[in-house]
Amino acid sequence: MRPVDVLDKAKEKRVLIKLKNGSEITGKLRAFDLHLNIWLDDAEETRDEKKIRYGSVLIRGDTVVLVSPGEGDV
Amino acid sequence: MRPVDVLDKAKEKRVLIKLKNGSEITGKLRAFDLHLNIWLDDAEETRDEKKIRYGSVLIRGDTVVLVSPGEGDV
Amino acid sequence: MRPVDVLDKAKEKRVLIKLKNGSEITGKLRAFDLHLNIWLDDAEETRDEKKIRYGSVLIRGDTVVLVSPGEGDV
Amino acid sequence: MRPVDVLDKAKEKRVLIKLKNGSEITGKLRAFDLHLNIWLDDAEETRDEKKIRYGSVLIRGDTVVLVSPGEGDV
Amino acid sequence: MRPVDVLDKAKEKRVLIKLKNGSEITGKLRAFDLHLNIWLDDAEETRDEKKIRYGSVLIRGDTVVLVSPGEGDV
Amino acid sequence: MRPVDVLDKAKEKRVLIKLKNGSEITGKLRAFDLHLNIWLDDAEETRDEKKIRYGSVLIRGDTVVLVSPGEGDV
Amino acid sequence: MRPVDVLDKAKEKRVLIKLKNGSEITGKLRAFDLHLNIWLDDAEETRDEKKIRYGSVLIRGDTVVLVSPGEGDV
Repeated sequence: MRPVDVLDKAKEKRVLIKLKNGSEITGKLRAFDLHLNIWLDDAEETRDEKKIRYGSVLIRGDTVVLVSPGEGDV
Repeated sequence: MRPVDVLDKAKEKRVLIKLKNGSEITGKLRAFDLHLNIWLDDAEETRDEKKIRYGSVLIRGDTVVLVSPGEGDV
Repeated sequence: MRPVDVLDKAKEKRVLIKLKNGSEITGKLRAFDLHLNIWLDDAEETRDEKKIRYGSVLIRGDTVVLVSPGEGDV
Repeated sequence: MRPVDVLDKAKEKRVLIKLKNGSEITGKLRAFDLHLNIWLDDAEETRDEKKIRYGSVLIRGDTVVLVSPGEGDV
Repeated sequence: MRPVDVLDKAKEKRVLIKLKNGSEITGKLRAFDLHLNIWLDDAEETRDEKKIRYGSVLIRGDTVVLVSPGEGDV
Repeated sequence: MRPVDVLDKAKEKRVLIKLKNGSEITGKLRAFDLHLNIWLDDAEETRDEKKIRYGSVLIRGDTVVLVSPGEGDV
Repeated sequence: MRPVDVLDKAKEKRVLIKLKNGSEITGKLRAFDLHLNIWLDDAEETRDEKKIRYGSVLIRGDTVVLVSPGEGDV
């Protein structure tokens, strides 16, 4: 079992991503690879209390700190 | 499906790019590769409330945080 | 014996992870690889005195400083 | 078409380069490679309102944020 | 002779490790590799005058500045 | 023609090197490689208005921002 | 001739090393490799006016800015 397998069950569901620059992004997980490059749809970024919405967004893997299925605070 | 496939439908259309240095750049997507090196035409960079325009610009992939088709706030 | 072998005995037990951004995360170790990409279940992140819980979380290896079986302060 | 192809038409012409340390350098593009290592002639660096001139200069690719044919503000 | 050979004589003895984040960790050296991933037992971390003890700990090599057999100040 | 070819004509002559930590080093160019690891003789480092002299010095390539034949301000 | 050849004549003699974190370390050069991983004996680190001595120390190459045979200020 590989660590990235945790994302298999999250496909087409919402995930929470934390980035090295302090941003948090939630969205529907469309695709990911082993570098943690990630494609989200219906995404929302929160940074310094500001929110930005994206129809779709590609996140570069080397900026990712962590990815969690769901949207945090279970 | 690879994460970068999200950019296929954005070819020749405008995209929003956020860089690690805090800049945001919008422009028409001409070419990209798997490292997220990106060539934009008719580009505009916004940083610290200042705007700079480029006829064309090559962005080094390792400075990219995210790329979104469209120009944000859908 | 490889350094990462220390984690073999920690499988399915709780570990403490310190990240480069100053966060600490504890959780049940489900999977890891040689890059220290790590999958935790029942995880809790502490940063700047705030706590966040995750049902499961994938941590990108290049953000990890150290991993300790147990939860610190033996 | 690769992103770096945007620089082919800029050979022997002036380009603007932004570096990660905040410097901007303009100069005549003599040579570049896929890492964005770049050789400029007749170059001028601007940083914190100070200007420095170089007869020729080699810029290490991993310090580059972007390269634009011309000198910006089209 | 390779630089890392200095650690051969330190196996099962205490070493001092300085990390890029300013922490210092001492402990008994159990295993290391060429990337300086390191497994310590009976470890103690000192950071900003606070001490934390670990029964065992795995340190990611790319966070290491230096390793010294003994505990410094010979 | 490769970017690094600009240094061929500078062999055994003085060059100016800017480092990522803000230092500037001038010296006689004895040897370099494609990573921009550089050996200078009769070198002088300037940082925060302080000067340090080295009979010879090896600079690690990944700390280099740029290299210019001559000593700047042509 | 490779840049690192400058260190051949410095074997078993004292060298000065500057690190990315601002530390300076002097010591007797026992071994080094192409990544600038370095083993020193009888070493002394100076940082923020504090001095620490090591009987022997292994320095990770990616933290090195420069290495100079001798102890600076020729």
